[in-house]
Amino acid sequence: MPVNLKSPVLALPVPGVSLGIAEANIKRENRKDLLVIGLCEGARIAGVFTKNLFCAAPVIVAKEHLSDNKGIRALVVNTGNANAGTGEQGLQDARSTCAALAGLLNCQTNQILPFSTGVIMEILPVAKIAAGLPGAVANMVEDNWLNAAEAIMTTDIVAKAISKQVVIDGVTVTITGIAKGSGMIHPNMATMLGYIATDAAISQALLQDMVRVAANRSFNCITVDGDTSTNDALMLIATGKSALSEVLDADSKTYHALLNAITEVAIYLAQAIVRDGEGATKFITIAIEGGRDEDECKKIGYAIAHSPLVKTAFFASDPNLGRILAAIGYAGVDDLDVSALKLYLDDVLVAENGGRAASYKEEDGQRVMQQSDITIRVVLNRADFNATLWTCDFSYDYVKINASYRS
Amino acid sequence: MPVNLKSPVLALPVPGVSLGIAEANIKRENRKDLLVIGLCEGARIAGVFTKNLFCAAPVIVAKEHLSDNKGIRALVVNTGNANAGTGEQGLQDARSTCAALAGLLNCQTNQILPFSTGVIMEILPVAKIAAGLPGAVANMVEDNWLNAAEAIMTTDIVAKAISKQVVIDGVTVTITGIAKGSGMIHPNMATMLGYIATDAAISQALLQDMVRVAANRSFNCITVDGDTSTNDALMLIATGKSALSEVLDADSKTYHALLNAITEVAIYLAQAIVRDGEGATKFITIAIEGGRDEDECKKIGYAIAHSPLVKTAFFASDPNLGRILAAIGYAGVDDLDVSALKLYLDDVLVAENGGRAASYKEEDGQRVMQQSDITIRVVLNRADFNATLWTCDFSYDYVKINASYRS
Repeated sequence: MPVNLKSPVLALPVPGVSLGIAEANIKRENRKDLLVIGLCEGARIAGVFTKNLFCAAPVIVAKEHLSDNKGIRALVVNTGNANAGTGEQGLQDARSTCAALAGLLNCQTNQILPFSTGVIMEILPVAKIAAGLPGAVANMVEDNWLNAAEAIMTTDIVAKAISKQVVIDGVTVTITGIAKGSGMIHPNMATMLGYIATDAAISQALLQDMVRVAANRSFNCITVDGDTSTNDALMLIATGKSALSEVLDADSKTYHALLNAITEVAIYLAQAIVRDGEGATKFITIAIEGGRDEDECKKIGYAIAHSPLVKTAFFASDPNLGRILAAIGYAGVDDLDVSALKLYLDDVLVAENGGRAASYKEEDGQRVMQQSDITIRVVLNRADFNATLWTCDFSYDYVKINASYRS
Repeated sequence: MPVNLKSPVLALPVPGVSLGIAEANIKRENRKDLLVIGLCEGARIAGVFTKNLFCAAPVIVAKEHLSDNKGIRALVVNTGNANAGTGEQGLQDARSTCAALAGLLNCQTNQILPFSTGVIMEILPVAKIAAGLPGAVANMVEDNWLNAAEAIMTTDIVAKAISKQVVIDGVTVTITGIAKGSGMIHPNMATMLGYIATDAAISQALLQDMVRVAANRSFNCITVDGDTSTNDALMLIATGKSALSEVLDADSKTYHALLNAITEVAIYLAQAIVRDGEGATKFITIAIEGGRDEDECKKIGYAIAHSPLVKTAFFASDPNLGRILAAIGYAGVDDLDVSALKLYLDDVLVAENGGRAASYKEEDGQRVMQQSDITIRVVLNRADFNATLWTCDFSYDYVKINASYRS
């Protein structure tokens, strides 16, 4: 079950964004599996995509359509099939899907962005999607984010959606976001789809900056299993429907207020993905402090986060914390002085001087391990850089889910 | 259960090497957990050790004693406690263990090499080990390798031992090796201990070469969970008791004949560790061919071997092979042309031209996935370098074993 994460009950409409869903029977019957997100004229959109070289056909097509720069009018998202590892046929299928929606919305094919998530290396059932699109278009309304969050779920147990309102320059600005996980989660996106919209007006260049920065502080700091997927994308939409003046200056207070609010939404969604990680029973924050640069902090953090031995020990609530030391030792920071670092589990000092801390008592470690939210803190004492990552434990259910995902 | 691996029934004595075991009650009662390997005068020994920065106290002390170069007379190996993450106390404990054995064997402390495997970050019970040593020494005989293989087991289900005899220059040379796994297995040694002995005479410099080369072709090509442990070591002993002239020339046929035989023994032991990997139900060979260098082949191989999604699909016998493509795509070979590679499962062509092969049928993939020994072959079509790795699948039992290892 998701770790301290409940189904969302509220997601505020963002003026200028309408959402419609349908059941297209892509992989299973009676399941919301198709989403159309319509954008008002003049809305801007920017995104970051997976860095996997086997990136899926919809990722390639979405990037093409963004670079055509004709003004994006809608996004189409299907679950049940990733349209990845599908070669030339996959590209045609992604384009056909866009063309079908463009026909319904009376715009050009390259004004549509396609997104897919699901099984890799199976041909996209374009006819089913095309047959589902009219229903999704007919369903389009602004107050539909919660349904949209459900429609993009795959192995997610809980839908992920959040809204935030901030008053900037006297104007109330709304930001609403949805995302889906929940396996193959790793920095640089993973099988992760995220859509965040605001009614602020933001220049195209700054919108691209914002989505990059927000992703780096959120989705690129999470990992479930270390697998980076073929399909992931985080899209940021700015409709300009609020009364706030267009944000044009990256040094302005307005820019930073908006960026912070958008980043908060992104962090909530990213953490929600980990909390609902496949089989997760613990939410683990890994804080690496005092490194020489952010890169070495992340290296050590990911070595801990990816260690199956560490993750199974957390699942067992067993303070077998030497496994964390071992992970630090093989993280690849070659000149690390292991006798200078300190390891904490929440507030409990576990290791220092290259070994178990004299003050450490097994029952203190045990107490923290029983919690569902736990922080591993490593203080390197080298310099002043930090990094924080979020991950989950590794349970029987992870194996169960992934050994039966297709069946 | 181990994958196509049975308990060894024969391990030939190597003249000049005697082995004694004892039950020292280090972690549990009634279990062989202490091994002494005695070397005849004039025997040479060389080794390779873990690269983990949190390397265990016995690794540090063994390296010191080797560099003291006083002639190693015995090795002492305990299971049940790794003496890792134990700081200054750990170093003292490793030295005390050596001193206790040196007293019994009437040699210097720095003529003993210590090895430990087991739980990390707990203090070594030196008194128990010291109390067990006289029994182990009294037990020392040459024909005792099978008992020795049992005494070094931790979560191993099956003992690992093998012998090989080769006729070189008309002389029969014996090589016998033992090893233990079976979690935290990863290149650069992992919680792996291996001891290989031959009665050939080999110069110290060439012995060091041989153990490095043999390790690179065997133990450094396996992975169970990607965790590199704190304690691992592969030691190669040459007693010089056979009639073969001392090997002094790295270009000689004799050197290569011996190296090949020793490497075969090392590969058998390394593969045995994977076959008995924690929770393993499948033995997977990953062959990457046609790369620009061995390094990029290994990168891609390890990305596949470490992917929990790939490993759980193999556990499920589910040809969800897009997960392999995804792993290739995030392996970090940035200029890889994914449309140029071919993916095979045994003899079945699965993917080409960036997607599913036209000839691929699900039932063919399914047939291969049912096997207990499977080869994943990726032909990169870039140049002529290759690498072969061995790994296993990821099962419920992996989680079970590692969620309860200490209890």
